[in-house]
Amino acid sequence: MNIIFGNNASAQLESLMVGYDNIFILTDENISKIYSSMLASLPYKKIIIPAGEENKNIDTVNFIWNRLLEGNASRDSLLLNLGGGTISDIGGFAASCFKRGIDFINVPTTLLAMVDASIGGKNGINFNNYKNQIGTFAEAESVIINPQFLKTLNERDIKSGLAEMMKYAFIADDSFLDLDSDNYLSYIEKAATIKNDVVNMDFKESGLRKMLNFGHTVGHALESYYLDKENYLTHGEAVALGMYSALYLSVKYCGLDSQWLFFYEMWFKGNLNILNLKDFDVESIFSYISHDKKNKNGSPRFVLISAPEKPQIDVEVSVDDIKEAIFILKDKFSE
Amino acid sequence: MNIIFGNNASAQLESLMVGYDNIFILTDENISKIYSSMLASLPYKKIIIPAGEENKNIDTVNFIWNRLLEGNASRDSLLLNLGGGTISDIGGFAASCFKRGIDFINVPTTLLAMVDASIGGKNGINFNNYKNQIGTFAEAESVIINPQFLKTLNERDIKSGLAEMMKYAFIADDSFLDLDSDNYLSYIEKAATIKNDVVNMDFKESGLRKMLNFGHTVGHALESYYLDKENYLTHGEAVALGMYSALYLSVKYCGLDSQWLFFYEMWFKGNLNILNLKDFDVESIFSYISHDKKNKNGSPRFVLISAPEKPQIDVEVSVDDIKEAIFILKDKFSE
Repeated sequence: MNIIFGNNASAQLESLMVGYDNIFILTDENISKIYSSMLASLPYKKIIIPAGEENKNIDTVNFIWNRLLEGNASRDSLLLNLGGGTISDIGGFAASCFKRGIDFINVPTTLLAMVDASIGGKNGINFNNYKNQIGTFAEAESVIINPQFLKTLNERDIKSGLAEMMKYAFIADDSFLDLDSDNYLSYIEKAATIKNDVVNMDFKESGLRKMLNFGHTVGHALESYYLDKENYLTHGEAVALGMYSALYLSVKYCGLDSQWLFFYEMWFKGNLNILNLKDFDVESIFSYISHDKKNKNGSPRFVLISAPEKPQIDVEVSVDDIKEAIFILKDKFSE
Repeated sequence: MNIIFGNNASAQLESLMVGYDNIFILTDENISKIYSSMLASLPYKKIIIPAGEENKNIDTVNFIWNRLLEGNASRDSLLLNLGGGTISDIGGFAASCFKRGIDFINVPTTLLAMVDASIGGKNGINFNNYKNQIGTFAEAESVIINPQFLKTLNERDIKSGLAEMMKYAFIADDSFLDLDSDNYLSYIEKAATIKNDVVNMDFKESGLRKMLNFGHTVGHALESYYLDKENYLTHGEAVALGMYSALYLSVKYCGLDSQWLFFYEMWFKGNLNILNLKDFDVESIFSYISHDKKNKNGSPRFVLISAPEKPQIDVEVSVDDIKEAIFILKDKFSE
């Protein structure tokens, strides 16, 4: 898979589109408004879906498949996914099942998608309120990372991306420990490259790749729990909280020096917004963990660390300790 | 992929099921009635869907995904697809997308599924009345072929399978030219092995594997056209007709000796039922061909042969000739 990075990355798109009989752009209503004149100038069919994680479901996939059929998409057609992680997740899934798989290119527009979601071939949709239960492994032909798109992001979206970038400090590269909300632009290419390198070593997530799930066990549970609530959490916010739980459990299970728990609490408070965790209910949040795809034989497994850059995968954690690691989040990070 | 063949093949199933945390059997209402006591004796969760190609759609897939979730299926669970081609098509697709892919085993109960549909990793569902528009490539861990299941098949189902078996005479092994409705049992293992060998050489159908589509371009169009009609065609019947069209075009485009067209007409009349092709409408049937997944750049491509065992893939055929090759079917093979 091909990562193209830089403020002129979009200019290279044209050369990647040669040889397809039909090109479709998938994007959401928000992006189609912000970039309406750019989109109007492109001679491709547009498929526009409602924005938001709550639309990442099989009904929206059916809508996309219908548009592709109506537009006479063939096996030699291309889908270009323009948007955040929701768009690359649902677009990658729709493309991977349409006529048993057509090519797609991701053009991430959010920080989170640039450094994580658009890379690595994991796609999926939510099903019955559970995150990404349905999906495939299918890699984009290329990922085009153009930081110009970040100019239209709001602060909340930027901060969501920061958390996933800080993850790389703990699992793979401690130079990310200096990351903050002022210098993050200089870390984007490095973050995308780490993600791609890890994925290439273990595409189907049989081992090593699992390290990328650091913070995601509790993170996904929080995200699912708040999905249909007024005070929903972005994926990045949920993972930011989940990483605190993971560090907390790392101290207890893997001998992580507790200074790192304190370091991360300070980093979180200095760089991310204070969150509204109204209706925080430990038992309900925990119940989502038992449906996590990463469970083996029904028992929840965590990615923890013994030190920065030293991930430990498949650590079995007791139910009581998981609940404790959820419980402390509200006190630490809510207003 | 592992093919296990013989009247005792089912006995080997148990050893294949070791190591899974949860096992689900997918089957249809007809099979669950015929084999109710056998199924009741198996300590696995059953997922029972309505029988018939008309239920091979996304709603049924949603139903299967819901049953898997409710039954706490994990990435380490197994789906056992017990039934004809419809069951392995929909079950393989559902398994390949559930939590980004769980293992599945096919246990074909029809002749057609034993020699073709259950082998090769192509799965799929119909979408908007078009055949198999949505699906993935995902191979079963094993295929268990137990000819005992054929005892409960009706004559129409056996004859449907015969046509797909005769296909191998034209594309791969002329010993199948002696195949008939009395000796077919002795050809099953050989047919399954040919299918598996061809698939292994070209899993994603970039070239060689396309030969297996001999007869399927017109066949799929006929099957789609009659799908919701009273006088529907089985897949095998539709392919049997489609093979005549393909042989007809082979004479015109590839220099096939016209004796083979005559040979096949006689074989069809001697071994398959006379069909009811009421409401046969050439234009409507042709319209399905323009949506065929095998088209390249919008122009219909055919698999034809220059002689038995000499397939030619991607042959471009004129619209008029395709319509002619459809038109003659009603006169030749209808009552």
